[in-house]
Amino acid sequence: MSLLGKLIGVGVGPGAPDLLTMRAHRAITNAPVIAYPAPDDGKSFARSIVTEFIAPTQIEIPIIIPMRSERYPAVEVYDQAADDLRKHLDNNHDIAVLCEGDPFFYGSFMYLHDRLAGDYETEIIPGISSPLAASAVLNLPLVSRNDVLTILPAPGENDDLQRQILAADTTVIMKLGRHAPRIVSLLGEMGLIDRAYYAERVTIEGSQFTCRLAELGNREVPYFSMIIVQRNSSVQGARA
Amino acid sequence: MSLLGKLIGVGVGPGAPDLLTMRAHRAITNAPVIAYPAPDDGKSFARSIVTEFIAPTQIEIPIIIPMRSERYPAVEVYDQAADDLRKHLDNNHDIAVLCEGDPFFYGSFMYLHDRLAGDYETEIIPGISSPLAASAVLNLPLVSRNDVLTILPAPGENDDLQRQILAADTTVIMKLGRHAPRIVSLLGEMGLIDRAYYAERVTIEGSQFTCRLAELGNREVPYFSMIIVQRNSSVQGARA
Repeated sequence: MSLLGKLIGVGVGPGAPDLLTMRAHRAITNAPVIAYPAPDDGKSFARSIVTEFIAPTQIEIPIIIPMRSERYPAVEVYDQAADDLRKHLDNNHDIAVLCEGDPFFYGSFMYLHDRLAGDYETEIIPGISSPLAASAVLNLPLVSRNDVLTILPAPGENDDLQRQILAADTTVIMKLGRHAPRIVSLLGEMGLIDRAYYAERVTIEGSQFTCRLAELGNREVPYFSMIIVQRNSSVQGARA
Repeated sequence: MSLLGKLIGVGVGPGAPDLLTMRAHRAITNAPVIAYPAPDDGKSFARSIVTEFIAPTQIEIPIIIPMRSERYPAVEVYDQAADDLRKHLDNNHDIAVLCEGDPFFYGSFMYLHDRLAGDYETEIIPGISSPLAASAVLNLPLVSRNDVLTILPAPGENDDLQRQILAADTTVIMKLGRHAPRIVSLLGEMGLIDRAYYAERVTIEGSQFTCRLAELGNREVPYFSMIIVQRNSSVQGARA
């Protein structure tokens, strides 16, 4: 019998509270301790999704992540956070760590997982990832039959991006932000603008936005945005 | 004001009932009509996931899909199913179509969507897709930072598969079935066996199985199985 708490990575999905799974909802309401990443200059997005499910009796641990352009936070941030979580785990308290989208899909939870999963029982509760949420909001099927799907962060080199886009039938380009104009140019050179769709802040009520990429214009593109390119998809049907 | 029913594609996730989202649960319990794919020789997997949420008062429409090796069912099957659904939609009944995993991720729902989305209000409720569920069960982070992720159906040609695997950091190879020995050989030639993990029927209680690919042996591999290859992933941490 273990007297140690369990580390639970909980996917809270792309933004709408009712896109949590029932398993995630139960884990969050049952855990005595809730941890979540939070920027040093504002509110935690992950926590904002589940605000209505957290009770005042639960202990909350914000993990403050310094937001400096696109550099990844120093290892010390996660070393310190892991040490903070260890104190609760060692006291036999389960900890639900809130993760935007899915814990193992481009999430900062992995840095805690690296440090703690070897020492404590760990459970991962998968979440709705943003490409699927964007596909649903755009009413645009992602892949069917034997289509190849590639998920591509925008910061890559153009040569690599081009090769990767050409190796796939459908490509989702994530983490656009300041890379958006370069990506739009690249897709233009590849003749793919008319096969591309844009989505930002999907499922966040009141702030989501979608359009065909050709209609994006000079819109300022946030980090939480993506382009879906259907270069050679077998998918037909209604389009955004 | 529309007097037509709404077509709702509901992702029911990879197998565990509590991996439904709360939105999916509400849609299923509220819809007067529930439709789902069913093989001609057995039970509907999608329906089996949500059995406990369906009431006897709800109308059920199984869409019988003839199971002939790996050929896709004839268009007539979906033409007929779409016509059946139209009768209910025209009567102002909303229809929840149950979709294994996510409706727009390799789902047969797309064939109904193609035929109906132009004529009726359509809502897509995203679901947990099996690669994320497998990653969670394997306790194996999928992608982090700027890793490239490719989802690859196994039936492709070896040359294409090799090129696509080499273009990605992490690859998920789906729909293994009878292709498994060929895929394992290919990964062996590419020197990737020790970076590969196997998962089958994830989250289906009592029948899920995972292992390192090197330990797969002569196991008979079902269609609902996958291999995750971390060729060049930045992900570290606990492994299956």
